[in-house]
Amino acid sequence: MTATDPLQRNKEAVVAFYELMFNACRPAEAIRLYAGDTYTQHNPHVADGKEAFIAYFERMAKEYPGKRVTFKRVLAEGDFVILHCHQEWPTDANKDWAGIDIFRLTADGRIVEHWDVLQPVPPSSANPNTMF
Amino acid sequence: MTATDPLQRNKEAVVAFYELMFNACRPAEAIRLYAGDTYTQHNPHVADGKEAFIAYFERMAKEYPGKRVTFKRVLAEGDFVILHCHQEWPTDANKDWAGIDIFRLTADGRIVEHWDVLQPVPPSSANPNTMF
Repeated sequence: MTATDPLQRNKEAVVAFYELMFNACRPAEAIRLYAGDTYTQHNPHVADGKEAFIAYFERMAKEYPGKRVTFKRVLAEGDFVILHCHQEWPTDANKDWAGIDIFRLTADGRIVEHWDVLQPVPPSSANPNTMF
Repeated sequence: MTATDPLQRNKEAVVAFYELMFNACRPAEAIRLYAGDTYTQHNPHVADGKEAFIAYFERMAKEYPGKRVTFKRVLAEGDFVILHCHQEWPTDANKDWAGIDIFRLTADGRIVEHWDVLQPVPPSSANPNTMF
């Protein structure tokens, strides 16, 4: 794979964007480097657009020090990249969350839309396979 | 696209499997028609394997009449199919759920592994875009 493969290019952009905004706590830089002209938000806790995204994750960085995401699966088709994530929020009542994010990118590889679903990892499970 | 395209074949199998077990309430038939020799379950509420899957969804069919899934996005890469779903559970305290499922299939298109993340759709949202 090389950066000339659009799916691989899109995967690398989305992973870099997420790590920069979530783990490195630099959402403004992440938006500047990787977002398109607009950013359509479907997570119901975050307002629409780039400025609201930055404000939300700057607040999360202050309120939840040490939060960290690990990518378990990175998939792509067409304009979409899908991330299966383990989010750790060490100071939250629920420390471990499973998440699957879907991002839509433009033809030139800029991130313009985001959906996700998040669920606390329960303390026990009916199977031994983990949520990941 | 034709059924000889593996990604399209896998998408069609997973959608047919999900509709049959969830909407039509026929999980035993769904497993017989579409699952592989094994079925590795990562949803923490469902035990591992094919028999446990059938038992769980036969119970859900009895306890939650009228449950229904709608597919908002169907994506695929390699051995994986990703479904972005709206689940309606009319008799549950939370009637509307957003879900993203990931299925893994064998090279001959049989479903052998499943991960998902589920979240109730909240009554209000910080943006006007819906979770879908």
